[in-house]
Amino acid sequence: MNSVSWPGVLLNIDMIQVMRRLPPRIPMDEYEELMERLKDIALVRQVGGLLSWDQEVLMPPKAAALRAEQLAWVSKEGHVRQTDPKIGELLEKLEGERGLDEVQMANVRLARESYDKATKLPTEFVTELAKHNSKSVISWTEAREKNDFSIFRDDLAKSIELARKKADYLGYETLRYDALLDLYESGLSVSRLDPLFQGLRDNVAPLIKAVNERGERPDMSWVENNRWSQEGQEALSQRVSEAIGFDFEAGRRDASTHPFCGGPNPDDVRWTTRYSEIDPFGSLYGSMHETGHGTYEQGRPRNLDFQPAGTANGLGVHESQSRLWENQIGRSLEFCEWSLPMWKEHFPENMSGVTAEQLWKSVNLLEPSLIRVEADEATYNIHIMIRYEIEKMMISGDLEVDDLPDKWDDMYEEYLGVRAPNRSLGVLQDIHWSMGAIGYFPTYTLGNLYSAQLLAAARRDLPDHDEQVRNGEFGPLLEWMRTRVHRRGSILEPADLIEEATGTPPSPEAFVEYLEKKVERLYGITA
Amino acid sequence: MNSVSWPGVLLNIDMIQVMRRLPPRIPMDEYEELMERLKDIALVRQVGGLLSWDQEVLMPPKAAALRAEQLAWVSKEGHVRQTDPKIGELLEKLEGERGLDEVQMANVRLARESYDKATKLPTEFVTELAKHNSKSVISWTEAREKNDFSIFRDDLAKSIELARKKADYLGYETLRYDALLDLYESGLSVSRLDPLFQGLRDNVAPLIKAVNERGERPDMSWVENNRWSQEGQEALSQRVSEAIGFDFEAGRRDASTHPFCGGPNPDDVRWTTRYSEIDPFGSLYGSMHETGHGTYEQGRPRNLDFQPAGTANGLGVHESQSRLWENQIGRSLEFCEWSLPMWKEHFPENMSGVTAEQLWKSVNLLEPSLIRVEADEATYNIHIMIRYEIEKMMISGDLEVDDLPDKWDDMYEEYLGVRAPNRSLGVLQDIHWSMGAIGYFPTYTLGNLYSAQLLAAARRDLPDHDEQVRNGEFGPLLEWMRTRVHRRGSILEPADLIEEATGTPPSPEAFVEYLEKKVERLYGITA
Repeated sequence: MNSVSWPGVLLNIDMIQVMRRLPPRIPMDEYEELMERLKDIALVRQVGGLLSWDQEVLMPPKAAALRAEQLAWVSKEGHVRQTDPKIGELLEKLEGERGLDEVQMANVRLARESYDKATKLPTEFVTELAKHNSKSVISWTEAREKNDFSIFRDDLAKSIELARKKADYLGYETLRYDALLDLYESGLSVSRLDPLFQGLRDNVAPLIKAVNERGERPDMSWVENNRWSQEGQEALSQRVSEAIGFDFEAGRRDASTHPFCGGPNPDDVRWTTRYSEIDPFGSLYGSMHETGHGTYEQGRPRNLDFQPAGTANGLGVHESQSRLWENQIGRSLEFCEWSLPMWKEHFPENMSGVTAEQLWKSVNLLEPSLIRVEADEATYNIHIMIRYEIEKMMISGDLEVDDLPDKWDDMYEEYLGVRAPNRSLGVLQDIHWSMGAIGYFPTYTLGNLYSAQLLAAARRDLPDHDEQVRNGEFGPLLEWMRTRVHRRGSILEPADLIEEATGTPPSPEAFVEYLEKKVERLYGITA
Repeated sequence: MNSVSWPGVLLNIDMIQVMRRLPPRIPMDEYEELMERLKDIALVRQVGGLLSWDQEVLMPPKAAALRAEQLAWVSKEGHVRQTDPKIGELLEKLEGERGLDEVQMANVRLARESYDKATKLPTEFVTELAKHNSKSVISWTEAREKNDFSIFRDDLAKSIELARKKADYLGYETLRYDALLDLYESGLSVSRLDPLFQGLRDNVAPLIKAVNERGERPDMSWVENNRWSQEGQEALSQRVSEAIGFDFEAGRRDASTHPFCGGPNPDDVRWTTRYSEIDPFGSLYGSMHETGHGTYEQGRPRNLDFQPAGTANGLGVHESQSRLWENQIGRSLEFCEWSLPMWKEHFPENMSGVTAEQLWKSVNLLEPSLIRVEADEATYNIHIMIRYEIEKMMISGDLEVDDLPDKWDDMYEEYLGVRAPNRSLGVLQDIHWSMGAIGYFPTYTLGNLYSAQLLAAARRDLPDHDEQVRNGEFGPLLEWMRTRVHRRGSILEPADLIEEATGTPPSPEAFVEYLEKKVERLYGITA
């Protein structure tokens, strides 16, 4: 048996590290010194990534308090390094430098963004924010449980006030809300988002209405009247993820209450899913979603390890990769044709007599509902659009907190034709605002739009795409994403990356077209 | 679905941390400042503890290289903090201080020990050592594979030379080897160990010889002729560990190639075992061993979190807790009587007709063998004694490296009556020396002696001990250990802790007596 503390081994690691630091170095120029500091920050994050993964997936319950201390320690170590004035000095010198190449320029630009975001908020303000958010999550939780918005009302009002203040510290050109959007996707603004959501509102909302009025619901009895074993779901998840190209030598699949993709680095990418015995789609499509995130992480440019230019490019592009596999591929008829034999292998009784067409219709059940996280791919973006419009109005002052709950319900009625019977199913459903995450929601929709735009572009290069999906050959599409998206890291701004990869700036067109075609094929409805 | 990076959450943690640091502090006195610094070091270790656990248990294979970077980073962060000259200054002031209580004195003493150990070795020397150990593990691995000592010979010679140098840096009173022993158990020395091993040599070696000559082997056919399902072994491991009192709300059981007990802190103690379908004892007794380590960690004095006085007390005492449950309890007839129904429940066919007495005899198979890690509880200490004597001679210069392999074989023949047919089964079997861990082995035997001594003392307070074990009531014994050992942390030196708990200084007597009684009961042999 090994002993509990392995002092020999630990000693060894100490020594190796000291050894690495010793050899006489040539004097570093500014760029090298910046890279060294960024590597240090990246390592802190990797360590934090593992601690967080473990916390979500398998930490024993009593460990929570001390894990919070460890995470706070990691966070503090990261913060101290990120706000080191030496980084500011290095950046100033490098920003005046000519002759930096594309990657070097990206690193300097991204390091500047992080440095500014970390240093522009005064410590007292960050403290106030942290205190308030802790309090706010608690009042939100209670309000949702008791179905009483008034419990959360004051804290939300304060959150909005603080979000405005945050925007003022961060700075913006036109709208305060732009500063908040930029926190989650670099360069994002209302002027860029408005046309995208406009396109969705004009085209998708009527489509949903038409489907809704038609009132045709696919036969879901074969799904709902059966029990689905976890074993079978796990096997399906695993096989599909492998077929897509997720490398399980450099990652893991686990179960967790809240599915996510995390882990410390591209060699160690860990995604989770959850299993329900009454719904076999949640685990499979969740797995495809997280596999999409995971392949992006695994495909990062490895010559840029520890550099900001080598990281995945913002939340919108990340979500495009998850949505691509989950929806654009996973909910296609061709994918259902390919996966049907696997379904039948793992659930022979449940799947007896079910055709690929039936499977396809069932995974594409299009139905307006109240809850965002349960929405189908058409209505989902309307959920986001509503939140976006509300956030804009709240930050600008055009909507008072007291008017919010009814405004929420009215907008759901207007755009989705459903009205929440209570606040918990309405305005209180999402945690984001209680955590101070205002400006986050739109990245979800960006992901959907990007994914459609990317697939449309990929199709031009892959004329046999449908046939390949039908045969379970996902390599060509993954390789296309590797080249055009994954390996480009964060060298370009997200919008520029999309334009480089697809030939056009971000636009809702491809997504609308995709949805129209799908609805036509599914329901015979033409836009 | 959650996104890949949860920026909202991470931001929150940042803020909470900053918040914690902000409130105006009263000026710290030296003791408080020392405690704050030690807490910081403890947190680094906790983080390292989780990274190491994950590496052993579930990290995907390609993640190895970057995990090494993360561990090196953690190690460096720990080293920088541990060797901060400010700690030296604080210690100097505090060592002159009167009016410290027992715990405070222990903290100062232990902090001094760590500080000295971390600072006494010059960086260049640590570098040389690290380089050499890395090289040495490789040559040892090759030598063992090829069964050729000459491949390892030069590196081992150098390791001994470096170990001597290390001892000189650390300082010692009488023997160089004492400085090395002290690294793994504070205060340990040849003058303390010699009488212990003498007692074992004089009493245990003849006992083994007598059993051996008798040539009676218990009937192992029911074990060897069956296949043992992992499922059944897992259930047994879990139930026994729970019965002993391991808290699975504050810990985990997993599988790993090399069983160990680790994890970051007393709220998160993680032990592992391994399963073999031809041997059901390895997993159960391994689980009891690691459960022993685990209950010690979970029982630490929680009012001393993050303080050296609140940690487990050295490798010998730690091993006493694992050996207690594995051997003293686990291989008792009473335990076999209690566990037999569980065995039958999980392996009804294999166990059909097997009696508690048969089970007891089988788990106590006493048989001299070549390999330490497979040895029974009687011969085990002879394996350690041989290594101890050899280390002493090598460090003092009384044994040349070229004479080592034959000396090894001769000693095995003399004390165990077996001779290795080749070097891999002889002198090359253990990794320790290749890692530079000279002085480590004796703590294994200390654990065995302490465990017997502790149980003998506990029996005086627990007159119904045997009956309690027979009924699976392990609470009274665990509580005794909690009070006398676990909750005392590292407040006393290990030897003083044993004396406080048992009334006598460390001695081989209880162990010898225990073994004599057992052999008499098993084989009818009286010493």
